[in-house]
Amino acid sequence: MKFSKRITSMQSSPIRRLVPYAEAAKAEGKKVYHLNIGQPDIVTPPGFLESIKKFAGDVIAYSASHGSYELIDAMIDYYKGFDINLERKNLIVTNGGSEALSFALMATCDPGDEVLVPEPFYANYNAFASSVNVKLVPITTRAREGFHLPPKAEILKKITPLTRAILFSNPGNPTGVIYTREEMEMIADIALEKDIYVIADEVYREFVYDGLKYTSFGNIKRLEDRVIIVDSISKRYSACGARIGCILSRNEELMAQTMKLAQGRLCVPTLEQVGAVALYKTPKSYLEEVNKEYQARRDILISKVREMPGVICEEPKGAFYVVAKLPVDDAEKFVIWMLKDFHVDNETVMMAPAEGFYATPGLGRDEARLAYVLKKEDLSRAMDILKAGLEAYPGRIKSASNF
Amino acid sequence: MKFSKRITSMQSSPIRRLVPYAEAAKAEGKKVYHLNIGQPDIVTPPGFLESIKKFAGDVIAYSASHGSYELIDAMIDYYKGFDINLERKNLIVTNGGSEALSFALMATCDPGDEVLVPEPFYANYNAFASSVNVKLVPITTRAREGFHLPPKAEILKKITPLTRAILFSNPGNPTGVIYTREEMEMIADIALEKDIYVIADEVYREFVYDGLKYTSFGNIKRLEDRVIIVDSISKRYSACGARIGCILSRNEELMAQTMKLAQGRLCVPTLEQVGAVALYKTPKSYLEEVNKEYQARRDILISKVREMPGVICEEPKGAFYVVAKLPVDDAEKFVIWMLKDFHVDNETVMMAPAEGFYATPGLGRDEARLAYVLKKEDLSRAMDILKAGLEAYPGRIKSASNF
Repeated sequence: MKFSKRITSMQSSPIRRLVPYAEAAKAEGKKVYHLNIGQPDIVTPPGFLESIKKFAGDVIAYSASHGSYELIDAMIDYYKGFDINLERKNLIVTNGGSEALSFALMATCDPGDEVLVPEPFYANYNAFASSVNVKLVPITTRAREGFHLPPKAEILKKITPLTRAILFSNPGNPTGVIYTREEMEMIADIALEKDIYVIADEVYREFVYDGLKYTSFGNIKRLEDRVIIVDSISKRYSACGARIGCILSRNEELMAQTMKLAQGRLCVPTLEQVGAVALYKTPKSYLEEVNKEYQARRDILISKVREMPGVICEEPKGAFYVVAKLPVDDAEKFVIWMLKDFHVDNETVMMAPAEGFYATPGLGRDEARLAYVLKKEDLSRAMDILKAGLEAYPGRIKSASNF
Repeated sequence: MKFSKRITSMQSSPIRRLVPYAEAAKAEGKKVYHLNIGQPDIVTPPGFLESIKKFAGDVIAYSASHGSYELIDAMIDYYKGFDINLERKNLIVTNGGSEALSFALMATCDPGDEVLVPEPFYANYNAFASSVNVKLVPITTRAREGFHLPPKAEILKKITPLTRAILFSNPGNPTGVIYTREEMEMIADIALEKDIYVIADEVYREFVYDGLKYTSFGNIKRLEDRVIIVDSISKRYSACGARIGCILSRNEELMAQTMKLAQGRLCVPTLEQVGAVALYKTPKSYLEEVNKEYQARRDILISKVREMPGVICEEPKGAFYVVAKLPVDDAEKFVIWMLKDFHVDNETVMMAPAEGFYATPGLGRDEARLAYVLKKEDLSRAMDILKAGLEAYPGRIKSASNF
């Protein structure tokens, strides 16, 4: 039997496809520190489960396709705090940020259409784009430039008559970059000049460090009718397994079109929405504590990385990832080796090989994405194991390439 | 701003797009009997909520992309009862049957490819197909033939080099048809001769009445490598709002390809899977009781429909829907009129206009889908209101067309 080209050409998730190696390591009795996936160990605010436990209905019924009004209203309140003013019709609750991103691509792009995206980018963008036959066109950014954007002229060169949108994660996954206001105004200029959408993946909005000022694409007034924001509670409230996100836009006709997609899949889970309402009522101090905790984790990771000869890694300013260049020829082989053939006192580390975060062939082969989502002592221990692994690795080369 | 053609050409869900009229009616103080949507009023087995309440983790974390093994194993056990023998690699847990259907289309079809489907069909197939640029090619079936399939030669005429699959809901939504073993063997012949997939939507597997024997496409041995089954707990356990379904196939390479899609969206909600495990452990007597209840509801609906002059409606043998031809020129106008301008003692009825369940233009305009998902007294009352509405409707014609 034949399969579709769209699926055979799709890469497996670089974050998840090596999971069988991790499972095998665990089956052998090894402990695996998971730096490969953005799964925080932060406790989910207890209101989530408490409110679900109080659910009184005796039928677990469909909810509205756009999401429950309780949740939509809680989200509207939340965005007010960022000076983003919305009405109910501007927002649809989705199955995580994942579905929001898929909806944004389907609403704006036909097969063969192109979306610009700074690389390295969140690898699952590939899956969402391939599955609906949208071409991601990379704007290469570089570790040594802190993964900031190239000049406007270089971005303009990538735009063709098929370009429909420019897609950002900001704060950046996997790079940790925070775009400056100047960069965002440049993007706004381009979007207006070229009449394209801006799809802003802002799921890490609260994860900004060193007192940097964060601007949402929702704050750029002149872009109002062309900005689509993709969001999620997964990271904000450490509720990845709730799969609650949203898509929002002040372009009402866009939201009306997107409602067709939402109606097709009927609704998102009813109970998870009940829990999510409680999360959005969590005191702000929770998010401040979480921010402090991640900043401290980042500091540990960076100081430990700097002790590793041959590793190149800029300090990330946001999200909870870093892309590190490793002194190996192929990071995927190294990650597999760490799981299969290496341990320190029966413990090892899993990372995500970064090649899958690039669209340009060959880029990122010696890079890995590390998520600093574990508590300080675990993270510290994981980094020590990584250091030992790099020292022991037979495929080690002298230093990472200085791309 | 422009939108994609795929989304502008998509119809709104005929099941959900009239919801604003229902909301307006309720805002005026009217009670609305919902026969438009397959939302049963049957109590969800309490194990669902009880097991979620016992969830002990303090982080709502991602689960595995293929679903939790507890749930997969519970599903494997369930299918054994239907003589469908699976291993873990044959099954992926999905966000309802909706996502399973989308996955099946994406894994088998590229843009422009065609999928045959008997019409009338579940209207949201249109949304899933349009969103990934797959063309649904209808095989027209007729009320007066109990919505059974036309002869083989007529189906073969619809097959082109672009045909990749034939899609069934069996028991049929919206028709209530149960395909005979002979019909299924005919489809098997066609699938093998033409080298196409069979996508079998069997979410109503337990809803078969009058002692009819039900055969799953999973029971046709010679089709093993080309059958994809789409399933869901929504109707089986009255847990529509849990959004738990699955896609399964004995074609291992197909499942491996489909895992890329599952990994892209990370996972389905963790807690809902915990609840679903409990549902699959519900004693069989629950499903037998539910079957009896629906058969009784169907009997009430049919006997009431037969009291309505000019309405044509065959007795459905499965699922919990019926397509009725109404003595009106446009069922959608009639449904809106019922919500806006009609009531009996401040109560009215909502149905789903059936035109959206057909792909052939013009068909189904005078038809509506009625879901018999309400308890007997409510259903009976709703049917009396419908009868009164048809009598009072200014757009009434003498009799439905005998298509």
